[in-house]
Amino acid sequence: MSEKRTEIGDLGEFGLIDHIKERVKLSQKSTLKGIGDDTAVIDAGDHVKVVSTDLLLEGVHFDLSYAPLPHVGFKAVAVNVSDIASMNAVPTQITVSIALSNRFSVEAVDALYEGIYAACEHYGVDLVGGDTTASRSGLVISVTAIGEVDKDKVVYRDGAKMNDILCVTGDLGGALVGLQILEREKQVFLANPDMKPELDKYTLVTGRQLKPDARMDIIHELKELGVVPTSMIDVSDGLASEIFHICKGSKVGATIYEDKLPIDKQTFDTAVELNLDPITCVLNGGEDYELLFTISQEDFKKVEKHPDIHFIGHMTKPEEGKFLVTKSGTAVKIKAQGWQHFD
Amino acid sequence: MSEKRTEIGDLGEFGLIDHIKERVKLSQKSTLKGIGDDTAVIDAGDHVKVVSTDLLLEGVHFDLSYAPLPHVGFKAVAVNVSDIASMNAVPTQITVSIALSNRFSVEAVDALYEGIYAACEHYGVDLVGGDTTASRSGLVISVTAIGEVDKDKVVYRDGAKMNDILCVTGDLGGALVGLQILEREKQVFLANPDMKPELDKYTLVTGRQLKPDARMDIIHELKELGVVPTSMIDVSDGLASEIFHICKGSKVGATIYEDKLPIDKQTFDTAVELNLDPITCVLNGGEDYELLFTISQEDFKKVEKHPDIHFIGHMTKPEEGKFLVTKSGTAVKIKAQGWQHFD
Repeated sequence: MSEKRTEIGDLGEFGLIDHIKERVKLSQKSTLKGIGDDTAVIDAGDHVKVVSTDLLLEGVHFDLSYAPLPHVGFKAVAVNVSDIASMNAVPTQITVSIALSNRFSVEAVDALYEGIYAACEHYGVDLVGGDTTASRSGLVISVTAIGEVDKDKVVYRDGAKMNDILCVTGDLGGALVGLQILEREKQVFLANPDMKPELDKYTLVTGRQLKPDARMDIIHELKELGVVPTSMIDVSDGLASEIFHICKGSKVGATIYEDKLPIDKQTFDTAVELNLDPITCVLNGGEDYELLFTISQEDFKKVEKHPDIHFIGHMTKPEEGKFLVTKSGTAVKIKAQGWQHFD
Repeated sequence: MSEKRTEIGDLGEFGLIDHIKERVKLSQKSTLKGIGDDTAVIDAGDHVKVVSTDLLLEGVHFDLSYAPLPHVGFKAVAVNVSDIASMNAVPTQITVSIALSNRFSVEAVDALYEGIYAACEHYGVDLVGGDTTASRSGLVISVTAIGEVDKDKVVYRDGAKMNDILCVTGDLGGALVGLQILEREKQVFLANPDMKPELDKYTLVTGRQLKPDARMDIIHELKELGVVPTSMIDVSDGLASEIFHICKGSKVGATIYEDKLPIDKQTFDTAVELNLDPITCVLNGGEDYELLFTISQEDFKKVEKHPDIHFIGHMTKPEEGKFLVTKSGTAVKIKAQGWQHFD
């Protein structure tokens, strides 16, 4: 090994993934898609299997001082189901591996699995395997989800065309604002354990952070409406970052409109209370687990009345770049600022 | 949650898995096998996909003070391929997730992936996805392997019949003895950093510990010979423990013969040097990653001349129990003593 030392923070998470991907050689003909989308895509004869995996560590991805174990279990499944959804696929099986320090009792494991079983039931997936082992430092959870979809219905990041309409489900920014509230109340509690955390008025945003729901409902509804998006991704790292992924994959630009961006009143009010710009929360808040997708103009009529799909902009020529048109009519360049786990 | 606290050590790893499995409800018709074998088995139309997953933590599963990063990467893949092999399947894709503390540089990640890429090439599998994240305490690796096999060729733990011949590949006990040597030399080095570790005469056993090879060669050869084992498992927790799994799954007993147990000379000599009973190392040493399988009497002729398959005993009625017949002719009850990660 060379003497050189390059910090991982210099590459960032996406840079590290690109660095790993560069050296990968694919040889199996059943591998239809490797690293570079929300899931891998594997040929299974008359359909395809999609595979997604996530690794969650206590102290990095969840804080047990405010996240109840059943919620952690539910979320670990939901974030993977969200990746499956973003391929327009339906989840079928999951494996769950856990590493536990001796701080955790069998009752704690039961509480964690209570959430995992609830998520399995909610999404109709089977828990089919995993690994259990000891840890020297807290809880580690690794979930792999498998889903399936007809071959001609898989949706990648790279199919958006110029003039396609950019759609997003639900509302955005809530999970980030919820996290800020939970962190604030934790600090208050640590400073003075007699203080009761004031969380009652923030249940929507803290719920978005603690127990997100993957939008499988949208996948089923799009199918019923006969709409196959031209591209799709789930909003895990923030809207701006996901728009960059679709634009890069599809070789297009995008223009979005501030007044079309969906934000819940509680998210807006709480952001203001926290001295955060609500639009920045919408653009750069991670962990919303909504779906961002593009549809062709012809499909617009089929979805325009859907109460939970918002039409936030359209795709442009690649050289036109990525812009947000503010309420005052100014076009502002969008910067990608996804979550960076590596400092 | 109740006030009761049950230690995980009271259940043990297998007990914990049974405890989790009890509450699992399966609803997908594509789930052919859930928790309880080396892999899950999922219907894929004209064939089946098998899925295995392992979670490996620094300080629990590997010690970077003597395990080089490329070996750790190779082994993380190999142990999952071994699970795929034990279903009589061929591995096709893997996902690899890693969590890293800032102790690790990009060069260290490259060293780890050097071993992962080498294993991918060696086993002909594609690296198709994963997750990269920060860790606050060392390296965590989670690998999921996917394989495929014809529907009528999947081999489970539960197909062994009375009078079937019990076969094991390669030799056993080396990985455990190798681990003891590595630990001994580490302690010598920690006590006196000027001492050079004496490892030259132990390369076979340390190699068995640091860089095990999944026996895909055997799977391909059995196919060529036209043999489908009646049951199969890989030797990850120790021969005795695996015999118990097959007997429990297949509802049979087993008699094995001490003079038939395969042990390498270096393993034997090193065990003696370490004051370990060589036969105990063979029976209870983990991480050999050889294949243990049963064949019907009719298939014996097809494999009897194979240089690396050893016929160590046969299956009996369940009420006859599990026995080792020693060289002196005494029948000794076998105890299952698999690896217990939870103390």
